Amino acid sequence: MQFDSLDDIRAFCRDLPAGDAGAADAAALRQQTLTKPPGSLGRLEELAIWLARWQGREIPKLERVTIAVFAGNHGVAARDVSAYPAAVTAQMVANFANGGAAINQIAGLTGAELRVVPIELEWPTRDFTVAAAMDADEFLSAVDIGYRTVPPDCDLLAVGEMGIANTTTAAMLCAALLGGGAVQWAGRGTGVDDAGLARKRAAIEAALDFHRAILGDPLVVAAALGGRELAAIAGAVLAARRHRIPVLLDGFVATASIVPLTHLDTSILDHCRAGHVSAESGHRALLRELRLNPLLDLDMRLGEASGAGVAILLLRAALACHAGMATFSEAGVSGADK
Amino acid sequence: MQFDSLDDIRAFCRDLPAGDAGAADAAALRQQTLTKPPGSLGRLEELAIWLARWQGREIPKLERVTIAVFAGNHGVAARDVSAYPAAVTAQMVANFANGGAAINQIAGLTGAELRVVPIELEWPTRDFTVAAAMDADEFLSAVDIGYRTVPPDCDLLAVGEMGIANTTTAAMLCAALLGGGAVQWAGRGTGVDDAGLARKRAAIEAALDFHRAILGDPLVVAAALGGRELAAIAGAVLAARRHRIPVLLDGFVATASIVPLTHLDTSILDHCRAGHVSAESGHRALLRELRLNPLLDLDMRLGEASGAGVAILLLRAALACHAGMATFSEAGVSGADK
Repeated sequence: MQFDSLDDIRAFCRDLPAGDAGAADAAALRQQTLTKPPGSLGRLEELAIWLARWQGREIPKLERVTIAVFAGNHGVAARDVSAYPAAVTAQMVANFANGGAAINQIAGLTGAELRVVPIELEWPTRDFTVAAAMDADEFLSAVDIGYRTVPPDCDLLAVGEMGIANTTTAAMLCAALLGGGAVQWAGRGTGVDDAGLARKRAAIEAALDFHRAILGDPLVVAAALGGRELAAIAGAVLAARRHRIPVLLDGFVATASIVPLTHLDTSILDHCRAGHVSAESGHRALLRELRLNPLLDLDMRLGEASGAGVAILLLRAALACHAGMATFSEAGVSGADK
Repeated sequence: MQFDSLDDIRAFCRDLPAGDAGAADAAALRQQTLTKPPGSLGRLEELAIWLARWQGREIPKLERVTIAVFAGNHGVAARDVSAYPAAVTAQMVANFANGGAAINQIAGLTGAELRVVPIELEWPTRDFTVAAAMDADEFLSAVDIGYRTVPPDCDLLAVGEMGIANTTTAAMLCAALLGGGAVQWAGRGTGVDDAGLARKRAAIEAALDFHRAILGDPLVVAAALGGRELAAIAGAVLAARRHRIPVLLDGFVATASIVPLTHLDTSILDHCRAGHVSAESGHRALLRELRLNPLLDLDMRLGEASGAGVAILLLRAALACHAGMATFSEAGVSGADK
């Protein structure tokens, strides 16, 4: 295993790999020479420079793009917090395998390789209102699965998830580590009704009380109040950092998955961008808390990396302009005359 | 010519072609059957239904996508309202022809056909601070050029422009037809300094005074205070409506180009979506005024259809999901259990 203990993760986060400032500077200089008013491509310019920083190349590439979707089941689903039965997690994994889900279509459109990784679906985590969802070994095992899913040579990673009840788990991690209580973080997920939303909030408040002794340790929280697919996303983000691979995060659950890591070092976010802001109510507040500026705002709330997957298209646009545009001198275009 | 007089345009706008409600309903029903919680693809669902409405097909297609970029020069450029010399308009048209501009890269990425249409660049419109920029015949000629640029069989049209000083012209049309004065609508365009911005505002205020007698007639305003590329965009939007082709509008100038038409009938916007909201300061206010909800917000302010071009990618994502996803029954996935 890449991380044999929680301390191994803590040690990695104390000395996070840095991006390549020279490549980023070269990319920024290149942007200044292209036939457009300075800055007029807005975030497309920033994205090209960000890709350059993490890939270590003035002109990045997006040849091998990987979308990783992790799936897990949750003991808290027994609290009736979702509009869908827990069996849907495995049914959707089968749908991914058969090419019928939204992310299959998006992966095809964007030219990405899709890796779907179900993690012990037949063994849900324990119900965190009355127990630790995972112990440290179970957590580390899921982190490792995520870590090993990332191809070390890929140019970009998009991460997402599938797991009935996992917006409850995501809200749980936010409430445990960021404060604000269940009301701030629990939303309607796939479409739970008012009574279900009340059960969701009650479960989170009960767990905050039950686990109050461990709330000061972010990795212990990630195990006791998290989920396997969330742990795997954290592992994938750590692997991407090790290999200096830029990452697009999907929605509320994917973003919440790395909140424990941000408590070790906020610069863990440097190689990450938020692909979109979800319609799930906690996501906008979470992105603001983490100072992540989402690339898309399309009222999506599907998960399964669908928002991050669509955002891959924006990176392709950023790269196409960065790599393909003529410079002012090549094109014989006059610069600003002031 | 399609429109021999301003009255011909007025007559067309009194009886605008409608979309296909049956196709839109069928597309909306289809969305309900796909393997995702209802509404969870957010605006991607709305976009698929909108394409269906205007193409008249439950499953739309995006085989022939046309990006039209119209270029014109402006007499008001002599008032020193831009950061760039007027010669840049023709230089950028040459850059488009040589494949070196941002829109060339974006068109290539999106699989769109790019049509660049320079309109009498050697004959700028007259300076509207002291004269009518165009008379009715000049205006109708530019509208006709735009109209004829649209392939009647294309599946989607994205419209944009190039023209040094044309954010002044766009702000002029907004100030003339929407009120609010120069301060609300004039921004920094390609990057004019404080003194240039002051000259821009002064030009608009001077023209509002000079032309105060005609401000009640939107098409006369479009001629006297507009520009050739703006008139061509209006013509292209009219052609698209005639042929029921959905349209993506680019930034501030492209959107301002159709303000005169919205004064004839606001439903002219029904076959249009705002591809993005530009960083040019007037655009967000203009979109709000027109109740257009932009698809992207990436701080772009380049024009040349670049924002609308990137938004084509979102339509491709919407269509890929709409056309390719499995239904709940095909995939054996359980529905919501409430």
